Amino acid sequence: MKKSKGYKIWEKALKVIPDGNMLLSKRPDIFLPYGWPTYFNKAYGYKICDLNNQIYSDFSYMGVGTNILGYANKQIDNHVINKIRNGSISTLNSREDLILAEKLLEINSWAQMVKFTRTGGEAASVAIRIARAVSQKSKVIVCGYHGWHDWYLSTNLKDSSNLDKHLFEKTRIDGVPKELNETTYQFQYNDINSVKELIKKDKKIGTIIMEVKRNIEPKDNFLKKIRKLCDEKNIVLIFDECTSGFRESYGGIHKNYAVFPDICIYGKALGNGYPINAIVGKKNIMENASNSFISSTFWTEGLGPTAAIKTLEVFKKEKSWKYLIRYGQKIKKSWQDLSDIHNIKLEISGLDAIPVFNFKNANHQKYKTYLTQCMLEEGILASNAIYISTKHDKLIFNKYFKILDKIFKNISNCINEKENIDNLLKYPVSSLTLRERKSNG
Amino acid sequence: MKKSKGYKIWEKALKVIPDGNMLLSKRPDIFLPYGWPTYFNKAYGYKICDLNNQIYSDFSYMGVGTNILGYANKQIDNHVINKIRNGSISTLNSREDLILAEKLLEINSWAQMVKFTRTGGEAASVAIRIARAVSQKSKVIVCGYHGWHDWYLSTNLKDSSNLDKHLFEKTRIDGVPKELNETTYQFQYNDINSVKELIKKDKKIGTIIMEVKRNIEPKDNFLKKIRKLCDEKNIVLIFDECTSGFRESYGGIHKNYAVFPDICIYGKALGNGYPINAIVGKKNIMENASNSFISSTFWTEGLGPTAAIKTLEVFKKEKSWKYLIRYGQKIKKSWQDLSDIHNIKLEISGLDAIPVFNFKNANHQKYKTYLTQCMLEEGILASNAIYISTKHDKLIFNKYFKILDKIFKNISNCINEKENIDNLLKYPVSSLTLRERKSNG
Repeated sequence: MKKSKGYKIWEKALKVIPDGNMLLSKRPDIFLPYGWPTYFNKAYGYKICDLNNQIYSDFSYMGVGTNILGYANKQIDNHVINKIRNGSISTLNSREDLILAEKLLEINSWAQMVKFTRTGGEAASVAIRIARAVSQKSKVIVCGYHGWHDWYLSTNLKDSSNLDKHLFEKTRIDGVPKELNETTYQFQYNDINSVKELIKKDKKIGTIIMEVKRNIEPKDNFLKKIRKLCDEKNIVLIFDECTSGFRESYGGIHKNYAVFPDICIYGKALGNGYPINAIVGKKNIMENASNSFISSTFWTEGLGPTAAIKTLEVFKKEKSWKYLIRYGQKIKKSWQDLSDIHNIKLEISGLDAIPVFNFKNANHQKYKTYLTQCMLEEGILASNAIYISTKHDKLIFNKYFKILDKIFKNISNCINEKENIDNLLKYPVSSLTLRERKSNG
Repeated sequence: MKKSKGYKIWEKALKVIPDGNMLLSKRPDIFLPYGWPTYFNKAYGYKICDLNNQIYSDFSYMGVGTNILGYANKQIDNHVINKIRNGSISTLNSREDLILAEKLLEINSWAQMVKFTRTGGEAASVAIRIARAVSQKSKVIVCGYHGWHDWYLSTNLKDSSNLDKHLFEKTRIDGVPKELNETTYQFQYNDINSVKELIKKDKKIGTIIMEVKRNIEPKDNFLKKIRKLCDEKNIVLIFDECTSGFRESYGGIHKNYAVFPDICIYGKALGNGYPINAIVGKKNIMENASNSFISSTFWTEGLGPTAAIKTLEVFKKEKSWKYLIRYGQKIKKSWQDLSDIHNIKLEISGLDAIPVFNFKNANHQKYKTYLTQCMLEEGILASNAIYISTKHDKLIFNKYFKILDKIFKNISNCINEKENIDNLLKYPVSSLTLRERKSNG
């Protein structure tokens, strides 16, 4: 087992940065402990050069969902650089704020007002602040992943397993004040009855925040029922589309279900890698922001909005979401076909634009690690989820599935006990990613 | 009264963005309602071009403290642009995180670990999370301005005037959950006894967060007493140096008092306009971050750290803080001299690097508005506070004080009732800025 150059640097980072970096989903141990390149020198299209200038194809997270239009996209970057040359910030405001707000309102015709932040956690917290200001009720129900802030993590105060299926198992939440106990409840996707029960039980519930869709399809008009319930009970409905936004429509994935929230938050892909998040909402809701103090210096820098304006233009022109859906459906089908050939049981899920699979096997985590190990040897960064970009092409698709064929063959041999997975693994088994399910065969 | 082109755009912005923008300190009405240029096309050095390409000299907020090295500083920007060309973000990590962490630890020799965010409010919230995780106590005492988050604004739940002297009078905090009532207390700067009383009264207090210095000098070893108290009572001490950092030393202003916190947060000037904030702290404190979930996608983009690394280099090389102090002291002296000449009573305060004055007069707000109006006519953006940059030179200094001489003469006439300020004002009176004191003559 040879440590990568990047992993050696990572071990230094662990000494001066708690947990080594600022995002769980970029920690090397969730991919391949010791072996993962971990750091990059250069990135363009779907290619990444590591610290040895070895070039990899990113068939994994694409910046954890930030780069639908690929890395270092010149169309976006040239606009950003132009803004830098003209001064990205000053005592006066950037007009790009207004231009971006108007663009987002065109896309979200149900909404009339917009606020911006620079991270998703902030955007969710601004939305929650506004919703609580409107409803004059503290309590919130969540379904999905909504960041690191107190209001969200407090879901685990009562029972440390509450966020197991939204975030990850037994999420530690030290430092979240106990006073927030039972201010946030959770429900499981598609379980409309549990939502109704919560609302019946606690009259202080004024807000529901949820991802519109993550791994499974809404059943039995679930989204429409949620909307109806919120209308009846005067509850503010927030859709968190930080991950799903712009991947399966020109806007939120909610468009595809014709169910509209009171507030929708966007981020991740919105600026193609530049930090920018938007809180988009109805006027009678959003204007309550003025009754609270919501203000931050860096929310007025100009690069985020500049990048987002151009990114939206390119999305629209290229109809990027159609490409992502088509490509993702092909991946899902090819996974299925290949698993049938090798008689491997897979659970395929995720948005079409972010296909995911899990081995239906107690050794899921080992097989996934083996996949990453083999793909890395062939110059591909891969795990069990793919954030598709418009730069992903036939070339990388064919290369990936050619290699996957061999990998699945070996895994099949392991399943059939002709081979032992422990003998194939050159590195320790990877740790769980955000919301990864523990498969039990 | 003629509305500026920018103000007309602002009126459009107000319709689609609650409060028009994302930062109170960039709202035109705190400077000059209707008249303030409000938006910029271009900024460089200390110059700003408005939407009519009229050039102004910024002798006011310099991005609200973000640009110590001036706007569009090529030394910083060229590095950032290089990073953009090589990809600012990817599935792998930016090595700049580690380089910046190591640089900040060199500067803060009392500290061993660092985390990063992209806004000051986030940085304070991460610091509070870690402090609460360490102390296992929910309650916090604050002194100063620490952002928009629930934990801070909850200070006003018990009494809506609690934050009057830290933020502004009767800050509205709709949407902050009532459950946080009495989780945060405040104290007045230099009042060590009130801190002692709070700690005596509530055993759940585990954290003090404060600005090291804002408008007045620490008296009677105040800072040392705070440090001693925290040591005795096992309280985590956080210094919020988002505003003061790098203005009067190569690091925090706490260096000048030889009093060291457990955690120090930096921001604003750290990246010379690019969003980047740092939470710097002792190892035994910071490593508790691993017992909580603190994670955000955009905290891993590479531009913030890249900008900060270069900004720190230039600070060090140019000894920028020395320039800011010297220049600020000259401003303070010239304000005093000029007010003596015209027999105007001024209260001069603020860090030397951010000098501030208030008219000791019931008409303070009107006189300040008049100053802004006159300065604007002469091509200078001015209010009653100046965030000095290394680009500010003799030329603008002399021009400003030449014009100020005339302004003070007219104000003196108003004070002596030879003239009526209401007749001199072409625009409505400006509204209060963050933490502006109401002078009562």
